[in-house]
Amino acid sequence: MRNKNVSYKNIDITGGFWKDRQDLNKIVTIYAVRDRFKDTGRFDAFKCDWTEGKPKKPHFFWDSDVAKWMESAAYILSKERNEELEKEVDALVDLIEKNQDENGYFNIYFTVVEPDERFTIRDAHELYCAGHLIEAAVAYYEATGKDKFLKLMKKYADYIEKVFKIEDSAEFATPGHEEIELALVRLYRCTGEEKYLNLSKHFIDSRGARGDKEELMIYNQSHMPVREQRTAEGHSVRACYLYSGMADIAAEFDDEELKVALNSLFDNIVNRRMYVTGGIGSSHHGEAFTIDYDLPNPNAYAETCAAISLAMFAGRMNEIRPNGKYGDIVEKVIYNGFLSGLSLDGKSFFYENPLEIVRADRTRNVSWPAKERFPLTKRKEVFDCSCCPPNVTRFIASIGGYVYTVGSDENTLYVNQYMESVSNLKLGDADVEITQKTNYPWDGKVNITAKGMKGKTLALRIPAWSEEFTVEINGKTADIKPTDGFARIEVDADEISAALRLDVSPFFVECNPKVNANAGRVALQAGPVVYCLEEIDNGPNLRDISISREPDFKVKWFDELGVQIIEAKAFRTKPFDELYRRAQFEKEECKAVFIPYFAFANREECDMLVWTKVE
Amino acid sequence: MRNKNVSYKNIDITGGFWKDRQDLNKIVTIYAVRDRFKDTGRFDAFKCDWTEGKPKKPHFFWDSDVAKWMESAAYILSKERNEELEKEVDALVDLIEKNQDENGYFNIYFTVVEPDERFTIRDAHELYCAGHLIEAAVAYYEATGKDKFLKLMKKYADYIEKVFKIEDSAEFATPGHEEIELALVRLYRCTGEEKYLNLSKHFIDSRGARGDKEELMIYNQSHMPVREQRTAEGHSVRACYLYSGMADIAAEFDDEELKVALNSLFDNIVNRRMYVTGGIGSSHHGEAFTIDYDLPNPNAYAETCAAISLAMFAGRMNEIRPNGKYGDIVEKVIYNGFLSGLSLDGKSFFYENPLEIVRADRTRNVSWPAKERFPLTKRKEVFDCSCCPPNVTRFIASIGGYVYTVGSDENTLYVNQYMESVSNLKLGDADVEITQKTNYPWDGKVNITAKGMKGKTLALRIPAWSEEFTVEINGKTADIKPTDGFARIEVDADEISAALRLDVSPFFVECNPKVNANAGRVALQAGPVVYCLEEIDNGPNLRDISISREPDFKVKWFDELGVQIIEAKAFRTKPFDELYRRAQFEKEECKAVFIPYFAFANREECDMLVWTKVE
Repeated sequence: MRNKNVSYKNIDITGGFWKDRQDLNKIVTIYAVRDRFKDTGRFDAFKCDWTEGKPKKPHFFWDSDVAKWMESAAYILSKERNEELEKEVDALVDLIEKNQDENGYFNIYFTVVEPDERFTIRDAHELYCAGHLIEAAVAYYEATGKDKFLKLMKKYADYIEKVFKIEDSAEFATPGHEEIELALVRLYRCTGEEKYLNLSKHFIDSRGARGDKEELMIYNQSHMPVREQRTAEGHSVRACYLYSGMADIAAEFDDEELKVALNSLFDNIVNRRMYVTGGIGSSHHGEAFTIDYDLPNPNAYAETCAAISLAMFAGRMNEIRPNGKYGDIVEKVIYNGFLSGLSLDGKSFFYENPLEIVRADRTRNVSWPAKERFPLTKRKEVFDCSCCPPNVTRFIASIGGYVYTVGSDENTLYVNQYMESVSNLKLGDADVEITQKTNYPWDGKVNITAKGMKGKTLALRIPAWSEEFTVEINGKTADIKPTDGFARIEVDADEISAALRLDVSPFFVECNPKVNANAGRVALQAGPVVYCLEEIDNGPNLRDISISREPDFKVKWFDELGVQIIEAKAFRTKPFDELYRRAQFEKEECKAVFIPYFAFANREECDMLVWTKVE
Repeated sequence: MRNKNVSYKNIDITGGFWKDRQDLNKIVTIYAVRDRFKDTGRFDAFKCDWTEGKPKKPHFFWDSDVAKWMESAAYILSKERNEELEKEVDALVDLIEKNQDENGYFNIYFTVVEPDERFTIRDAHELYCAGHLIEAAVAYYEATGKDKFLKLMKKYADYIEKVFKIEDSAEFATPGHEEIELALVRLYRCTGEEKYLNLSKHFIDSRGARGDKEELMIYNQSHMPVREQRTAEGHSVRACYLYSGMADIAAEFDDEELKVALNSLFDNIVNRRMYVTGGIGSSHHGEAFTIDYDLPNPNAYAETCAAISLAMFAGRMNEIRPNGKYGDIVEKVIYNGFLSGLSLDGKSFFYENPLEIVRADRTRNVSWPAKERFPLTKRKEVFDCSCCPPNVTRFIASIGGYVYTVGSDENTLYVNQYMESVSNLKLGDADVEITQKTNYPWDGKVNITAKGMKGKTLALRIPAWSEEFTVEINGKTADIKPTDGFARIEVDADEISAALRLDVSPFFVECNPKVNANAGRVALQAGPVVYCLEEIDNGPNLRDISISREPDFKVKWFDELGVQIIEAKAFRTKPFDELYRRAQFEKEECKAVFIPYFAFANREECDMLVWTKVE
């Protein structure tokens, strides 16, 4: 047996922070994305009737956009019936059936735009689109029991196996944009058919090892065999999709070489190349990882999809060997660099998630037409390259899948995330019901009841950020030292209640001094939530604000945004008119108002800052 | 009478800091620039025999490059005979004579490359080149008494008057790159012919007021009549050349409207848009001024020529109304953002003068071909656009012209700059000999003897950076309060000695908090010299170094660079491996070694930082 994350299907999020977001997702966001995708021709493109000269020419990544939307709909349908969504998906599936090639091939772009170029252009996202369609088909089957879509995609996967593995007849050996690897593992786990697992392993094994067919590019992680890779390189979404697929294969085959590579890649990301928000890929050039400690704030790329992909990677690492550090990273992502990608009204999205906005920088070239590039300061409903919106909807709808892991001993239940929820799952032969009551992340109290776990171990992740914690079992304080980031409770009754108390009081985060961008600055965090200053609350020149080392934090609820805010004692330089003068270090006390980073840019376009001075 | 700066001709720099630099200039730099200009075809271009298909096609700014070199040679010749230099200039003058049009026109590019386009392309630098040739001709006449070059250029100026003023027949009314304005005033002052002064005024008056002929561009300061301009805009060299011309006209015509504009423009630059080094023009886009308080450090443009142009502007403002603040800016420029443009060996140049170098930033895009742009980290001997090198040579050779101003009352001698020197000049009818003995800027002691000034006023600039100062007259302490930045000594003897003591001890400079880039940081200055940290002395991650508020400064002589250095008590963050952690604020004491900013990048390419943390 291997460690297995418990499916989103087994957990119902019943209240609190994530219930609000799942409700918004199923009431607003899923339709907002659908409508924009319809406007832009993405849904109609499945009719495969576009011809030269017509508007709305399909792009080669459109299949994947809609596939992720279908997958999102499936997750929503898995929790409750919704005729409208089901009809939409069925209609799309019918179009796929109608337009699928006899041999199983399906791709809009390479059917209507470049039909003669199938499997000849490595970077044209065919296998990426196939992977997303496969994921959608699996999710739709799991949600509804309908197997038509799944069968169509099995047929396609069989064709891919033929072309890429049996005949080796495509003009490239491995995809330019990874995704098919993890999708095939999912298809295997759903169908039990090992050929899909082996095809996934084939792509993993071939990557960077087949210099005869493709350019060895660092950009798409094919610069060397994946087992030899030690640092996270290139396009960050592609990278973490690859690493996720590698982690699946490592878990399935107990592949030690892959595990060594994965441990190093994960460590390189989280200890060298990740924003404090969990954002990754610091350069817009190639949407890519750059070099260790290179984390500029105003021009951070930190794509929303990249944050999602890091959560996917971290979640899968926990299946290789459960450790609280993986849940820590998932948590960092979901409360910060992922969630900032979505507006609080659920309708619009950031593709890039900067950690600082200085609007004046955008107006500086008054006398010369300059092509300087900055992240948006206001979320958009749809992008030309609109990978992020449906990635957000599917991630929120399936976030329950990050909560529990069943240990390989079938004896330990790891609680990775804290969300108000009810779950029913199998722990070996035991039927377990586990409930969480909590107002996390605003409150560090999590009350857990576990039924059916007598003789088993309940392992609660103790986040690294929590300076102290207590656990009470049935009202009695337990003295537990965490190991591998989990406080392990030996359950001695059919039903126990465990009251976990984490310390979510605000604290300063310091950054490794090798990160130039953050020298002399701190971030403010409370629980897993990273905070920021916005100009609307604090006035201009945010970089001048210096938080007191005795900040007298005041935590408040801010109804307008539906979030917790933090006030802190701070200082500003006493204004003077000269540009330069002999330093007088004159300060004025002021109040700094922090809001959660994920909530920035929801009122008006204004300056924003995560890393503040401190004194 | 107007206030008049005393000519470089009247002052011999006899020792110390600027003697060393003038010697290097006349022994090394003048020939280094000549040789590179010969290599690149700039000298031969004066033969005007280039034809299509030949290499070394003349550029439309080549006349100006060589003209500035000729002007430099003239300044050197004005102090001592040098057959080699004189021959070079004479040969060039002969070529100009040979190739000058009958009507007086002379321009290499518009003779051999686009002969049909004379005076049709506003931005093609024709009048700019003419201005530099005129300046060179005046300087050469002043240095040698030879008037051939001057006559040729008078003829050209007459033709320019005809085309631009009398007939108004050019396709533009005012130059795209200013320079002719100040050059014509110089020609007037040399020849006494008022038509040149009036032609200069004509260009000043027409600028931004003749929308019929040219685009109203902020880039070249023609967006509005110059008398209405209040903020420094566009290409910064063009701007300060224009403002210099405006100041000349304002002084000559006692033009109040121009003075109002100039006061505002000067104030806008020095209190809103100037680096602490005296560098201006913070964006490489258009080599331009941007917006108030926009002074990024690693990508500072701060062109060497722009620093020179600011000194030119400030020096001329002192002629309108003497004030120590003008000498302060000249001083800031000459010891910092100008001088950094020249290597200590006198052979190579910076075009851009950044205030921070982080070499890692240049290597970040490992997976994608990115066209990011950064200033050079090593000086070059010649540039394609090589305006700076000959501007450096002419500026150093004529720097004596910034030392003294004779007041309009012909009774006051303003001492604007401190340099070891002997000068002979007229103050009204009096013949004055004034000598300075000093090791300035390393030492704040300046011993001045003045002969022939009985009944006159000797006004010593008290730099704003000097927290305290003393003046002893003939050994007795004088109690003088500076007015308008000058300590005024009423001279009561035929010969007096004045001992000025300025405080050149190191001090921190703070920046207006509206400058985002410098928030929480200070610069280190001693006297007028701004200091910086280099990686070679301080290790990597310079931004992490925090100078102690009790820095225990140790001032030392550093023979290798021939400069004073400053050691200070400082702190670095105690190293840790994590990327982020709960802040512990652990520091380790270290020693920070500062060198003068002007001396950076003279040992090896490495990181550099002006604005350091302080605590």
